[in-house]
Amino acid sequence: MKIGVDYYPEQWDRDLWIKDADLMKKTGVRLVRMAEFAWCRLEPREGEFDFSWLDEAVRMFADRSIGVVLCTPTSCPPLWFYEKYPDAVMTERDGQRTRTGIRGHRCINHPAVRRCCRRIIEEMAAHYAGNPAVAAWQIDNELEAYFCFCDHCAERFRNWVKSRYGTLEAVNRAYGNVVWSGEYSSWEQVRLPYGHYPSAWLNPAFMLDHSRFASDSVIDFVRWQADIIRDRCPGIPVTTNVWFSEHMPDLYREFEGLDFISYDNYPSAHPAEDEAGFSHAFQLDMMRGVKRRSFWVMEQLSGGLGCWAPMGRMPEPGLIRGYALQAFAHGADTVLHFRWRTANIGAEMHWHGLLDHSNVPGRRFYEFADLCETAEALGEARETFVRAEAAVLLSFDNEYAFKIQPQTEGYSYLEQPRKLHRALTGLGMNVDVISSGEDLSGYRIVCAPEMYIADNKAAKRLHSFAREGGTVILTVRSGVKDIHNNAVMAPLPTVYRDMVGAYVSEYDPIGRDTVGVRFADGTLFSAGQWCDILETEGAETLAVYDGEYFRGRAAVIRSRYGKGTVYYIGTVGEQALYDRVVSEAVKGAGAACIPGIPSSVEVTIRSGNGKKFYFVFNLSSRETACRITGRQVSLAPYEMKILKVVEKEEAAVRPNI
Amino acid sequence: MKIGVDYYPEQWDRDLWIKDADLMKKTGVRLVRMAEFAWCRLEPREGEFDFSWLDEAVRMFADRSIGVVLCTPTSCPPLWFYEKYPDAVMTERDGQRTRTGIRGHRCINHPAVRRCCRRIIEEMAAHYAGNPAVAAWQIDNELEAYFCFCDHCAERFRNWVKSRYGTLEAVNRAYGNVVWSGEYSSWEQVRLPYGHYPSAWLNPAFMLDHSRFASDSVIDFVRWQADIIRDRCPGIPVTTNVWFSEHMPDLYREFEGLDFISYDNYPSAHPAEDEAGFSHAFQLDMMRGVKRRSFWVMEQLSGGLGCWAPMGRMPEPGLIRGYALQAFAHGADTVLHFRWRTANIGAEMHWHGLLDHSNVPGRRFYEFADLCETAEALGEARETFVRAEAAVLLSFDNEYAFKIQPQTEGYSYLEQPRKLHRALTGLGMNVDVISSGEDLSGYRIVCAPEMYIADNKAAKRLHSFAREGGTVILTVRSGVKDIHNNAVMAPLPTVYRDMVGAYVSEYDPIGRDTVGVRFADGTLFSAGQWCDILETEGAETLAVYDGEYFRGRAAVIRSRYGKGTVYYIGTVGEQALYDRVVSEAVKGAGAACIPGIPSSVEVTIRSGNGKKFYFVFNLSSRETACRITGRQVSLAPYEMKILKVVEKEEAAVRPNI
Amino acid sequence: MKIGVDYYPEQWDRDLWIKDADLMKKTGVRLVRMAEFAWCRLEPREGEFDFSWLDEAVRMFADRSIGVVLCTPTSCPPLWFYEKYPDAVMTERDGQRTRTGIRGHRCINHPAVRRCCRRIIEEMAAHYAGNPAVAAWQIDNELEAYFCFCDHCAERFRNWVKSRYGTLEAVNRAYGNVVWSGEYSSWEQVRLPYGHYPSAWLNPAFMLDHSRFASDSVIDFVRWQADIIRDRCPGIPVTTNVWFSEHMPDLYREFEGLDFISYDNYPSAHPAEDEAGFSHAFQLDMMRGVKRRSFWVMEQLSGGLGCWAPMGRMPEPGLIRGYALQAFAHGADTVLHFRWRTANIGAEMHWHGLLDHSNVPGRRFYEFADLCETAEALGEARETFVRAEAAVLLSFDNEYAFKIQPQTEGYSYLEQPRKLHRALTGLGMNVDVISSGEDLSGYRIVCAPEMYIADNKAAKRLHSFAREGGTVILTVRSGVKDIHNNAVMAPLPTVYRDMVGAYVSEYDPIGRDTVGVRFADGTLFSAGQWCDILETEGAETLAVYDGEYFRGRAAVIRSRYGKGTVYYIGTVGEQALYDRVVSEAVKGAGAACIPGIPSSVEVTIRSGNGKKFYFVFNLSSRETACRITGRQVSLAPYEMKILKVVEKEEAAVRPNI
Repeated sequence: MKIGVDYYPEQWDRDLWIKDADLMKKTGVRLVRMAEFAWCRLEPREGEFDFSWLDEAVRMFADRSIGVVLCTPTSCPPLWFYEKYPDAVMTERDGQRTRTGIRGHRCINHPAVRRCCRRIIEEMAAHYAGNPAVAAWQIDNELEAYFCFCDHCAERFRNWVKSRYGTLEAVNRAYGNVVWSGEYSSWEQVRLPYGHYPSAWLNPAFMLDHSRFASDSVIDFVRWQADIIRDRCPGIPVTTNVWFSEHMPDLYREFEGLDFISYDNYPSAHPAEDEAGFSHAFQLDMMRGVKRRSFWVMEQLSGGLGCWAPMGRMPEPGLIRGYALQAFAHGADTVLHFRWRTANIGAEMHWHGLLDHSNVPGRRFYEFADLCETAEALGEARETFVRAEAAVLLSFDNEYAFKIQPQTEGYSYLEQPRKLHRALTGLGMNVDVISSGEDLSGYRIVCAPEMYIADNKAAKRLHSFAREGGTVILTVRSGVKDIHNNAVMAPLPTVYRDMVGAYVSEYDPIGRDTVGVRFADGTLFSAGQWCDILETEGAETLAVYDGEYFRGRAAVIRSRYGKGTVYYIGTVGEQALYDRVVSEAVKGAGAACIPGIPSSVEVTIRSGNGKKFYFVFNLSSRETACRITGRQVSLAPYEMKILKVVEKEEAAVRPNI
Repeated sequence: MKIGVDYYPEQWDRDLWIKDADLMKKTGVRLVRMAEFAWCRLEPREGEFDFSWLDEAVRMFADRSIGVVLCTPTSCPPLWFYEKYPDAVMTERDGQRTRTGIRGHRCINHPAVRRCCRRIIEEMAAHYAGNPAVAAWQIDNELEAYFCFCDHCAERFRNWVKSRYGTLEAVNRAYGNVVWSGEYSSWEQVRLPYGHYPSAWLNPAFMLDHSRFASDSVIDFVRWQADIIRDRCPGIPVTTNVWFSEHMPDLYREFEGLDFISYDNYPSAHPAEDEAGFSHAFQLDMMRGVKRRSFWVMEQLSGGLGCWAPMGRMPEPGLIRGYALQAFAHGADTVLHFRWRTANIGAEMHWHGLLDHSNVPGRRFYEFADLCETAEALGEARETFVRAEAAVLLSFDNEYAFKIQPQTEGYSYLEQPRKLHRALTGLGMNVDVISSGEDLSGYRIVCAPEMYIADNKAAKRLHSFAREGGTVILTVRSGVKDIHNNAVMAPLPTVYRDMVGAYVSEYDPIGRDTVGVRFADGTLFSAGQWCDILETEGAETLAVYDGEYFRGRAAVIRSRYGKGTVYYIGTVGEQALYDRVVSEAVKGAGAACIPGIPSSVEVTIRSGNGKKFYFVFNLSSRETACRITGRQVSLAPYEMKILKVVEKEEAAVRPNI
Repeated sequence: MKIGVDYYPEQWDRDLWIKDADLMKKTGVRLVRMAEFAWCRLEPREGEFDFSWLDEAVRMFADRSIGVVLCTPTSCPPLWFYEKYPDAVMTERDGQRTRTGIRGHRCINHPAVRRCCRRIIEEMAAHYAGNPAVAAWQIDNELEAYFCFCDHCAERFRNWVKSRYGTLEAVNRAYGNVVWSGEYSSWEQVRLPYGHYPSAWLNPAFMLDHSRFASDSVIDFVRWQADIIRDRCPGIPVTTNVWFSEHMPDLYREFEGLDFISYDNYPSAHPAEDEAGFSHAFQLDMMRGVKRRSFWVMEQLSGGLGCWAPMGRMPEPGLIRGYALQAFAHGADTVLHFRWRTANIGAEMHWHGLLDHSNVPGRRFYEFADLCETAEALGEARETFVRAEAAVLLSFDNEYAFKIQPQTEGYSYLEQPRKLHRALTGLGMNVDVISSGEDLSGYRIVCAPEMYIADNKAAKRLHSFAREGGTVILTVRSGVKDIHNNAVMAPLPTVYRDMVGAYVSEYDPIGRDTVGVRFADGTLFSAGQWCDILETEGAETLAVYDGEYFRGRAAVIRSRYGKGTVYYIGTVGEQALYDRVVSEAVKGAGAACIPGIPSSVEVTIRSGNGKKFYFVFNLSSRETACRITGRQVSLAPYEMKILKVVEKEEAAVRPNI
């Protein structure tokens, strides 16, 4: 495991640079990321380039055997750029130009942006080509699939639609434009969704395509940058850093053209008991799942956060070390902390780094130093990887579609994947969170929640996975929409009806109301948001509703399909409902798990080369203890312990929940 | 009673049309409304008309003896219109044009809108003139008195003011423009209330006129359309469909020029116990009161609603049938359900129709079929009508004025009319909700809450009604403003002081605070919002305040005026306070009522031709029972039962509460 | 003490004027403020002036020995002005012009505004020069340091920056512009903070300068007006009326050029027990502290408020008199009530005056008449003043900086000064609330909360004040920023570390979380928002944290510095925590106080010429009693009693808490 930091030499007096570099070396820092927002220093006036200061910094780190990650500084063009091209900023829904003064204002589809970005990237890449200190390139920063409403984006979207559908008739049909007299009679009428309407008020087919277009714009921008870098500075791996945002591009497609995924990892500094740490493990598993390979953390939590919101809590003692090791446990072989020292200037001065404004090492820094030691010792875990028998499927089409049309008050697409993931994790299982487009071979159990937008390939794979003996968990809102986001004219869950052995005779979007769900043994769980009232056609009823006018009707069912088993959860339950269904499914599927882990403890396993490392993380402010692979493990608050097991000494634990 | 549905042939493949029409006929559908949003299919390019598809649909329904309601499609001009006249959309307060993409964007005062609307209406009306299938015309859809800020509206408003006041001196005086140096020194300075200020920050006299102007604009647009239709397609009744919105035009004036009122009726699918159904009865009574005649429901709740908000609950079993019959009980002789089948395309795809996306008849559809049978059987109730001894008065001037200047945090104009209506309904009484401008003869009891804006005719009628022996209930905020919305310089309730036998020596707008109101027998009610501290001048004190610095001062009083009785409720109480005052008033007035109805049950009576029909509706999820006209009636959850009584067998029940 | 009223003759028929003036004289009114918003009547068309009506009003009052305060009507230019200069309104962050229709829309930096204001002020001042009835001039109305984004303001700001820093290098360094590539490469790039971003997202150094610029703009406008008035109408004192708003200019600098401060005083009409009245005393003390002299109340609460918010509660009986006398007790020698009669026209018609819309004197008016009598009787208190041994320091730099970067959710700069003031007031002490720039001699105890932005002079004064034997109370967030609002690179509290005898080894911005703070005697207080974890270097630990990972670490400390004592409160506690620390500090400092006052009672002392007046105010709806200077005083709800003590008869009470 490699530890690094994010560093901004341009923000500090030069006499601090060497002190910083010396302390990094002494502490065990192996990588430094630089130049992310430094365009105004690399090209202070248009066409005048100055790499001398960065050269000096690179050399200084190289002299101390610290590798360098260089960033294309394209997130923040200098003010001379905006002075010259005032319309190159993003444009808002109401046609107003985004105001500069923060960061990331440029429209990535604007010709002037492309032209000036190309020049700085070419210069920079050529300048650092062959420099052995350069370990990797980062493209831009935290690119999101924002909606820009400038005329360039409008034109580009129009062409995107034209090339996808060919004729006005085809697009009118695909979008159902006849509703509210919205049929296009000329291509000029294809416009962006201007205006501050809630997205649900607009045509959902049109809106889904618009989201896909926004994602495609980011993907295009990233690939375009990667090509320029590789052309001028070949042989260096290229990535871009993503965060788990409200406007994610389709990460599965975005990273097809890049060498590895890197992720900005900010778990809760002050997690609620049993909760936040696990939900963050979901994101780590998702990032590993993007390329089904190990990944980097490009920014790692180092202190209390502030700027975009008022200052938040400082990380509890243990979490600087624990979260970095958790990231490694889930597949992040490299972790860079954001940032070495808290900024003393600029709006983000309350986003705390490892060192405080005072530059005096404190509790967090000493914990980081301890982490560096542990990371060094974990060199032997290099050849291990995270292997999972269970998967949870995601789809960005679904993410976009549920954002466009929220189903009920409070409904969130990711709630069910998270709860299924948590249920599996709670059994000590590794879990892959992957695209619904992925091959499913090798899994014993696949959770496919809310397969909302039609995906024929995914549907086929799920059918054959089950037919061949796999266990599938399906949920509400599956098979609802066709590929255009229009409703399918067939009883729900439409294409999954045969697998599920039942159909939805009626549903009730109960929203914030709640209803009980009772299993045959009398166990009662609380559910809300949505109730499918199921009519079984061969499936076995596991649980029924305990209230409302549909009391006694089937809520959770199980059917045999081919050699496999298919569960359908017809409502949105509390966590314990998923724990119940998943534990039955895991038992039935014969997947390996670790029963009896305390609810606050997360166990993740990396294995390979005959070795197994158990990462045992106490996500709680209370001391706790548990038994892992035959050993008693006691854990201080927020402590992460690592157990090494040589493969043969361990007997596989088959489920006995 | 006639049942119909709203249908959008343009949204479905033609092979579905005949299946739908056959099923409608079989189910008992008698009317179909069409073409409401179909402009882009009726005039696909400017000046090119295509009625062929609609002809086919009309013929198909006519062949099955299903009448047709045709709509002018003017709510949604096609995109070619907006492409050609981009400024014909409404303009927002900040001067920004409304963005298209939803519906109803056009400014109804814009010359291009008027010109293109005239053409399509003329073509359409001429085309269907003489077609016996056409049962009625609907103008546009759910027209509201929106505030448009385009230059055409600005000019029109300026002329409206000019023609109302004649001179700048007169308008400056009427508006009290001297405050904050706001006097007009030229007509150009008469502008619209641009900007995102809360309306209460602006001149209330000016703002009331602006609301009146917005209402007048709708009224003008409706009359103009009606004239065109009648000119080209004479002999067919013309209406427009209204809903109970935040921006209602003055319905009393709007419908003077139309043949009947039609209403879009969406009561709560999942009503809170004892509440929502009754509040909806208020709206039904109000719609009947607009023309004091029976009315249509042009859109009737058919399933869970979604689009403008996330999806809501599905109607409880019983409510598809119950709500339609409730509408009939309150005077809606014709009810069209919105909509036959849920849309599979477009933003409103979550606004559920009778049939689901699957097109498989389910619970709601079967209930609708049952309703159709009941409706058929109710043919004999045709000659009956809703007759009331009690009335509640409304005024759109008051509605606008209270919106402009909310009195206290949480104060709402309609709360007191609703509570008075509920108190009367709770006694099993029919209630007319009518304009304060109406003749009051025939009533025994008239509730005139919040007679805020001066209305001399109404004041005179109330005086003479009381003088002649009627019972009047007045409340806080009466006589406060002159016709311009300026405060009257006299002790409150100014013109009503003599009737009330008291004046307001002081008031306290207590808002969200509460205070007790204690009657002589010790009964205590909770009140809030507003406290008039009354100084009686002949009136009898019924209840006093039980707290605050005005403890012991008069809160509810009664006075004798001429041969009649006048109550004044000097605060805004909980429902039970109105129940108490109304039951005393009803007893005193000798009006007929049905004592002892359970609180969840609504009883409405239609009578005529020697017959009486009692509509007994259990607005609750619990079974209940009650005694109506000597018969024991037991009701399942949400059940509507209809009792027929031949007039002579029933003895009128005089109050004995 | 002088009592006056605010009066708008232009809003009333002339036949009311004399009736009003007669009633004023009879009641004891001594001053009338006029013409504040009357520009449209003083200059009905550009360049045509009409003072005749105002002359008549001035004469009428002069005839009755009522003095007149004249206002420059510049807050509200007439509509002819906006018609001619449509761009002279303020411009919003998004570049949209402010919409007229309310008041105060003009941009005070706009050349046309300056030109037209100069003309009306010159005409008016010249017209009333030498008129003995004129007692004072008020400039404009409630000027706030609003942010205008028009091009004139942009240019003016650019020049302001240029003149402050001279070179682009200097401003880039001062602002830390390198962050996010924000360095200026030309002066044209110095722009205003356009856009609707939260202020914390923007560069805090730049933003603080922008706030200073907005304040400077007001200061310039006020001085400019004062110069014009004094030039044309010499010898009359000049003020402007301020209110305690979200956008206060730096009052200390604003009033340097004016003759006295006047304040619009609207304490809570319906105060929560023990709270609102005291917090308002803070504001009165702050206004007295602006010039460390007596001040005027230019608008005093007269009834329930409404317009900008829905109507609020009416003042409790006692408060019309009590609040005016409270203002006098805190240094307001002149109090004008806003307003004589409630407006019957215009948006502010719900902002109640002494007389209601009815023009019939009621409870509030009779209380006002009683106040006038008391005020007359207080003539003998003329030579007294408020003398304080304790001070609380404020700084507008801090006010602006905390607004720009809120520290945590719910953190407010003024919370700690208020709580310290309340703790001192609760001991019956007079308190000065003064600028951190003031001389501290004469005080025994100085509270210097949150000395956030570097102020070298203030720091030096505090050091020497303590060194010479004074008692200082410091708090969290001291010494944090340099003069540019950048973070200081030294352990907190940086420049105060030596005084405090400790440094902050770590902090945790706990926000809405809470933690206990335990004193050595076991007393436990609740704290939130912020926790400094203190490492003492000579200081004595008074209290430690009772929870979180920093349980047992120092939270409140005391150190000896020179001959003095310095307290440091390392967290934001509940009121009782400040009461505890302040009472120890007062005892230690040997300051005079009145122990044992009930928590709802405020005692304020005016002394001078051998006399002492105790103002004893029961800020509660309950009767209470207390012992003041040896006498038993019983108080009705909201009663204000005044005790007169001849100096020698009173023994100074030294603390014995």
